[in-house]
Amino acid sequence: MLSRYFPVLRWGRAYSPSLFADDALAAIIVTIMLIPQSLAYAMIAGLPPQVGLYASMTPLIAYAVFGTSNTLAVGPVAVVSLMTASAVGRITESGGPDYIVAAAALALITGIILLALGLMRLGFLANFLSHPIIAGFITASGVLIAASQLKHVLGVPAHGETLVAILQSLASHIAQTNLITLIIGAGSILFLFLTRSYLQKLLRKAGLGEKLASAIAKAGPLLAVIGATLIVAALHLDAKGVAIVGDIPSGLPPLTAPAFDTDLWRQLTGAAFLIAIIGYVESVSVAQTLAAKRRERIDLDQELIGLGTSNIAAGMSGGFPVTGGFARSVVNFDAGARTPAAGAFTAVGIALAALFLTPLLYYLPQATLAATIIVAVLSLINLRVIRETWVYSKSDFTAMAITIAGVFFFGVEVGVVAGVALSILLLLYRASRPHCAIVGQMPGTEHFRNISRHDVITSPIAVSLRIDGNLFFANARILEDKLLGLATDSPAVKHVVLMCSAINEIDASALESLEAINERLKDAGVVFHLSEVKGPVMDRLKRTHFLDHLTGRVFLSQYDAMHSLDPETFFLPNGAPSP
Amino acid sequence: MLSRYFPVLRWGRAYSPSLFADDALAAIIVTIMLIPQSLAYAMIAGLPPQVGLYASMTPLIAYAVFGTSNTLAVGPVAVVSLMTASAVGRITESGGPDYIVAAAALALITGIILLALGLMRLGFLANFLSHPIIAGFITASGVLIAASQLKHVLGVPAHGETLVAILQSLASHIAQTNLITLIIGAGSILFLFLTRSYLQKLLRKAGLGEKLASAIAKAGPLLAVIGATLIVAALHLDAKGVAIVGDIPSGLPPLTAPAFDTDLWRQLTGAAFLIAIIGYVESVSVAQTLAAKRRERIDLDQELIGLGTSNIAAGMSGGFPVTGGFARSVVNFDAGARTPAAGAFTAVGIALAALFLTPLLYYLPQATLAATIIVAVLSLINLRVIRETWVYSKSDFTAMAITIAGVFFFGVEVGVVAGVALSILLLLYRASRPHCAIVGQMPGTEHFRNISRHDVITSPIAVSLRIDGNLFFANARILEDKLLGLATDSPAVKHVVLMCSAINEIDASALESLEAINERLKDAGVVFHLSEVKGPVMDRLKRTHFLDHLTGRVFLSQYDAMHSLDPETFFLPNGAPSP
Repeated sequence: MLSRYFPVLRWGRAYSPSLFADDALAAIIVTIMLIPQSLAYAMIAGLPPQVGLYASMTPLIAYAVFGTSNTLAVGPVAVVSLMTASAVGRITESGGPDYIVAAAALALITGIILLALGLMRLGFLANFLSHPIIAGFITASGVLIAASQLKHVLGVPAHGETLVAILQSLASHIAQTNLITLIIGAGSILFLFLTRSYLQKLLRKAGLGEKLASAIAKAGPLLAVIGATLIVAALHLDAKGVAIVGDIPSGLPPLTAPAFDTDLWRQLTGAAFLIAIIGYVESVSVAQTLAAKRRERIDLDQELIGLGTSNIAAGMSGGFPVTGGFARSVVNFDAGARTPAAGAFTAVGIALAALFLTPLLYYLPQATLAATIIVAVLSLINLRVIRETWVYSKSDFTAMAITIAGVFFFGVEVGVVAGVALSILLLLYRASRPHCAIVGQMPGTEHFRNISRHDVITSPIAVSLRIDGNLFFANARILEDKLLGLATDSPAVKHVVLMCSAINEIDASALESLEAINERLKDAGVVFHLSEVKGPVMDRLKRTHFLDHLTGRVFLSQYDAMHSLDPETFFLPNGAPSP
Repeated sequence: MLSRYFPVLRWGRAYSPSLFADDALAAIIVTIMLIPQSLAYAMIAGLPPQVGLYASMTPLIAYAVFGTSNTLAVGPVAVVSLMTASAVGRITESGGPDYIVAAAALALITGIILLALGLMRLGFLANFLSHPIIAGFITASGVLIAASQLKHVLGVPAHGETLVAILQSLASHIAQTNLITLIIGAGSILFLFLTRSYLQKLLRKAGLGEKLASAIAKAGPLLAVIGATLIVAALHLDAKGVAIVGDIPSGLPPLTAPAFDTDLWRQLTGAAFLIAIIGYVESVSVAQTLAAKRRERIDLDQELIGLGTSNIAAGMSGGFPVTGGFARSVVNFDAGARTPAAGAFTAVGIALAALFLTPLLYYLPQATLAATIIVAVLSLINLRVIRETWVYSKSDFTAMAITIAGVFFFGVEVGVVAGVALSILLLLYRASRPHCAIVGQMPGTEHFRNISRHDVITSPIAVSLRIDGNLFFANARILEDKLLGLATDSPAVKHVVLMCSAINEIDASALESLEAINERLKDAGVVFHLSEVKGPVMDRLKRTHFLDHLTGRVFLSQYDAMHSLDPETFFLPNGAPSP
């Protein structure tokens, strides 16, 4: 029981030196990747760089205790950082002390929401957003983030929450471009692209082992950061207008809860909900993909608790909202992480960096950080999915297009709200239309099939509808419409039979609809019957008065029903009675 | 085409003197019922009585032009009036000119929302709320309305938005009870109960025809109003502290749009959405019930347009939100209304009342109006549904109980928001759990059935899952979980077969999940197959690359699949090949 809520108790007992060696190696590689990323994502969120480091320590430890994925790398990620900027930026100006407090409060609220959902075992909420809507949202956010970072590459002031506003702002400042900044930024982008695409192959050719070559290639962003920092420091380019990171306070974050401020919390709660949804869906998708590769499983409810405690930890140690990131988790997996302890070791690595490396980052140019972001988020942009969705389903494509347009023209929050609203609409639309078929007898057999697909025998006085799915409130009204329509559309009909062979559950709403259908058909002079009701469904119906009020009968088989109601139309050629 | 949006063009062409006679008679009876109701519902909404009359004219005419139900009686109703009081009361103080303007704006916004939903053909939104949640909401609102009217019966000042607050406020003022008011109020309640229960029988016994007896019994509230007014006027009880309606400006409402006020509209939009949902669901339920009794049909999309234009009309003629009411519609139906024209004739009746009768209502005691409300809303309280839901489904009962508690302890808006949120949760929960079964071979046959219900043959290396429902985003993740679980849970498994016999549609999300399942199973060394894929589903799959990537095969029949994958386990005793 205890180990359900503290998965660390399960895997921790069997922890061994060999597991430690694997986890530690993975942690070193992830740490190298995470140092520049954490600074960069803090920049996206409009926060000072050390906040990125703070968000990469305690949350990882919390996840190691409460999470169920062996390879998920929790920490700041691009999309959630963008959402943080949008939410906190609405309340107070970027960069100030209020802004930092609000970002930590946002993480705390997000964590409380996730934890509460987890304790209520609402992990199935991960099904909430349709994949094309998520893909559209993430692609659009990637474009928005890349655009928002261009100002650092050009060295100009620019701002805006929407793609249109950002591009307009950039265009109006383009004349002020700082050439040296642009050279550093563009050079960094080029370097990062080249290392990502060719460095590993080059190193292999030069005779390095596969693991080492891959690890060095992963260090591309770190190499860019070191190189650019050295160049700026050596040539004192900061005096020539190149924006640098500057002083980063060294040391570990204080462990304190952000002061509770009713007004602030009320303003942030909506945004925290959206971050919780998006963060959870993104994280679970990655965790499931990686777990399946090793025939492992993650627990959807416990993942809510894991991410919830991570965000609470972020909020209580001066960080900002975190979740499981795609790229880092894949690296963690490839590097051989075998338990959640790898995350805890990464936290130690980041703590060492925060204690001892921050002075070395003084001359790090912001243009290079922006370059690492731009190259990283371009991998979020997935045009293939957009094209394939267009080919496969126009309605899914429409939902995706509206979400993308929402992000581009109205910002990330409107985009995700539009996505959620569309998902609910789509869900309701799909759920409200179970497949159903009017059925007739296949000549010479006891089988009843869809009249629109088979050449079957039908009767003018007895008609039958088969519903392929459970009956519940979302489709109860369609059920009424279809069954009453059978009677309304052909005045000769005397019997309506609902074939229940595919119905495994009838909720209270659908039961009420069946009662209403029975009453209304009675008023119209039509008898209502059921056939092939499954055992468990029948047991529940017997607990109600429905069967007492039913004007017709409950037949064991569809053939029985139709043969009894209209023996002149439905019979077997040999005249044999139904078995 | 034009007659789709203007149903009046359909039935209006065939209008005849005989239809007119029937509609006019129904209109007279409904008018008699509507005069006291419209005054009373305006009182619930915190509005002066003439606003109730205004909301009972133009909306009825708009519905006659745009509505599709022949018997629905549109106008002010109790629950929507309560929601109006709650929404407008938050913005400004009851009774003042600002309050009246805000109520009209609320109707206009509600109408615009309904009209927009109708033009987008989103009538399926009526499926949105589960029946137990609606029943719980309406029952709780009935109790709340009855409690809120007790102050008029006692003649004390009291206020509050929640049941607790109302009862506390009443308790603290109980000592100030005006005895004469109480006698009038209690007397009115008694009179109304008796006329409702016994008057019709009594009149029949006295030799009156059934129709006349029923019509007189329906006039109970009007008789109470006339009797109480005469008594108060004759004895000048208003001088003794009995609150009376007082001056009602006579005449027709002005036709003007409420001034557009961005701030006001923003504050009202949320409430307008809730009123639109509740009003639509209530109205459609009544309209469908009545239409089915005569084998008529209503159009769910056009009903949105009908109610939308009605509310816009209410907003532009100084009224407040309206919808189709249960009790009046039943009376309209019983009285023999045959076309929507009956509603237009009722509007004429109310217009005559507004022009000529208002001076006669000067001495009408508020206690009697409150009594008509209390007696009317007690019929909304449906304890039978609560009990039956408890017996039938504990989860539905829980949702209902939370909605009721929301209304009682936090007010009508929190109640309906809780109801909507719970409905979405329930919808997602149900939609995310399609019935699925691991299947095995029925010995000696080609049939494959649920292993937990039948004694079937299974194989350690080839397992098969059947999903009984369409695959879409809400259940895509469960699909992944189940199929990957088959491989994860038993390491000997080499083949996983998805039996698609009950799948009629696969959306883009589910397709992506199938691709992910295929990849993940491949990584785990398991081959993924499909069987019994239906024609239309196969056609769409062929438009994608899924079949190219599929590690296994697509088998025409389940027996083919299992026989090919594990011939030593799955075979027919006579060794005959599959046909």
